Amino acid sequence: MRITVLAGGIGGARFLQGVRAHARTQPDGDVTAVVNVADDTRMHGLRISPDLDSVMYTLGGAHDAERGWGQAGETWTVSGELKAYGAEPTWFGLGDKDIATHLVRTTMLDAGYPLSQVTEALCARWNPGVRLIPATDDRLETHVVVDLPGEGRRAIHFQEWWVRYRGNVPTSRFVFVGADTAKPAPGVLEAIAAADVILIAPSNPVVSIAPILAVPGLRDALVAASAPIVGVSGIIGGSPVRGMADKCLATIGVECTAAGVGGLYGARSDGGLLDGWLVDTTDDGLTVPGVRVASAPLWMTDEDATAAIVAAALALAG
Amino acid sequence: MRITVLAGGIGGARFLQGVRAHARTQPDGDVTAVVNVADDTRMHGLRISPDLDSVMYTLGGAHDAERGWGQAGETWTVSGELKAYGAEPTWFGLGDKDIATHLVRTTMLDAGYPLSQVTEALCARWNPGVRLIPATDDRLETHVVVDLPGEGRRAIHFQEWWVRYRGNVPTSRFVFVGADTAKPAPGVLEAIAAADVILIAPSNPVVSIAPILAVPGLRDALVAASAPIVGVSGIIGGSPVRGMADKCLATIGVECTAAGVGGLYGARSDGGLLDGWLVDTTDDGLTVPGVRVASAPLWMTDEDATAAIVAAALALAG
Repeated sequence: MRITVLAGGIGGARFLQGVRAHARTQPDGDVTAVVNVADDTRMHGLRISPDLDSVMYTLGGAHDAERGWGQAGETWTVSGELKAYGAEPTWFGLGDKDIATHLVRTTMLDAGYPLSQVTEALCARWNPGVRLIPATDDRLETHVVVDLPGEGRRAIHFQEWWVRYRGNVPTSRFVFVGADTAKPAPGVLEAIAAADVILIAPSNPVVSIAPILAVPGLRDALVAASAPIVGVSGIIGGSPVRGMADKCLATIGVECTAAGVGGLYGARSDGGLLDGWLVDTTDDGLTVPGVRVASAPLWMTDEDATAAIVAAALALAG
Repeated sequence: MRITVLAGGIGGARFLQGVRAHARTQPDGDVTAVVNVADDTRMHGLRISPDLDSVMYTLGGAHDAERGWGQAGETWTVSGELKAYGAEPTWFGLGDKDIATHLVRTTMLDAGYPLSQVTEALCARWNPGVRLIPATDDRLETHVVVDLPGEGRRAIHFQEWWVRYRGNVPTSRFVFVGADTAKPAPGVLEAIAAADVILIAPSNPVVSIAPILAVPGLRDALVAASAPIVGVSGIIGGSPVRGMADKCLATIGVECTAAGVGGLYGARSDGGLLDGWLVDTTDDGLTVPGVRVASAPLWMTDEDATAAIVAAALALAG
């Protein structure tokens, strides 16, 4: 059973815990995660890959479960000193443990290794039990067109929009910079073609899943895949499970409901992605034209609950 | 009273505390330190400047007086994580606080600022009370030709020789890589020309002072300076006050004595540098041909003792 998952950061990481748990109950269960990189940027010269790290730390058992991001037992000495120097940006805190990851990544990237190989090298320490592949090794960054008070319309990096402004700024659109020339990282197309089932994690559809799909060739590979594709809704009863999918969906004019996001992904029979769409029991009864919809409790409260979600998604895949 | 000091790291930093203390007792006391950069390198992609940082932290009151290097209250989270990743080099520990300094420096250097401007920017936080100028903005690195067991003869960076091997490896010579094309940093030649007195700190003559002198034009500027030049011996009774000057001097075939180092710098009247040479009272009575020699207690036990050393050096300058 080869499962390929498209995933963003924190929600994707938690979902992958369930996928891994389920796969371990299967003969030859094998999981590959194609992870969003469009949140990536450089901070203080360090290349950060928030989604890859969230997945890696979580599956490596090192994540801070309470805070939801970063590593457990994290400290903030370096960030405090950077602030004392007045080094910009001051609105983004880098944890000390996290900085070591970024130093290894940055050093390897600057030495010419592609992000996919860097990720493999980092994972040698964390043993995530899931193969992690960045959607692309190329630069692909979500920028956000906003109207800043007194500054007018400009494009800022997604991290600035998310972390600095918490999305509370008039927002026109999201632009995936580099999406015109990016190529799928080695292994991505193979993992899609070879999959027995493809899952779309309950990650943010607009800024986590969409930039994966924006890599040229990737959406075509999904459409052409022999495996069924099942998505899991990250919207329950009209609200995102976590994060700011509501603000993101509003920006692109899509209703913040499980039906809205299901429609955004679209039916495979109609040029979209989905064979199946798994929604929460709260949203039982909704329909997405051309898509098999099923419901199950979608709160990922623990690994067992999440594995049950995965089992329901796989059942929906047939 | 404009005092220009040639200085290395830890010993130079401590000496400069005394120079600053003395200068504050003088009308218009003004101190410029020309600091060695040949220990600089990149570690984990971060540009480190050990001597500039030692001076900056010490004069900024942030140094760890007990350990002798780095900042007080330093922590080592990042280094521990780098080791967990197996990231090389594992023999060099970067403190968390220190890493913030390196991140600011590296980011500014990579953005195109010269080291002298970076140093000025970093000093805006620390207020050292002394103008710190790197000897050069250009790459100038001490490499050491050694015979490593099983590896034969090769050149390693000074930091590897000093920190990893503690100098305990057959050593042929020191090479100042980049010394053929380096230029004095902006302000260096002016500080030498405008000085009322020039002091050579009791730093390592072979690997701290010599690479400063190796910058083309710098030695000529000293020879041409109108100010007297007085050196302070870092060797007391045949042993270095701290560090490994003994191993360094042995490598270049100079006796590890105050007389030996005085002779290495040489008399200004004879094409060398020194008008005066201040030695410890233990070494009272030694002579250096063509150089006025005086003695005083040279143990820099505290700032007052060090200021007294400086006063003695200035008295010797005339």
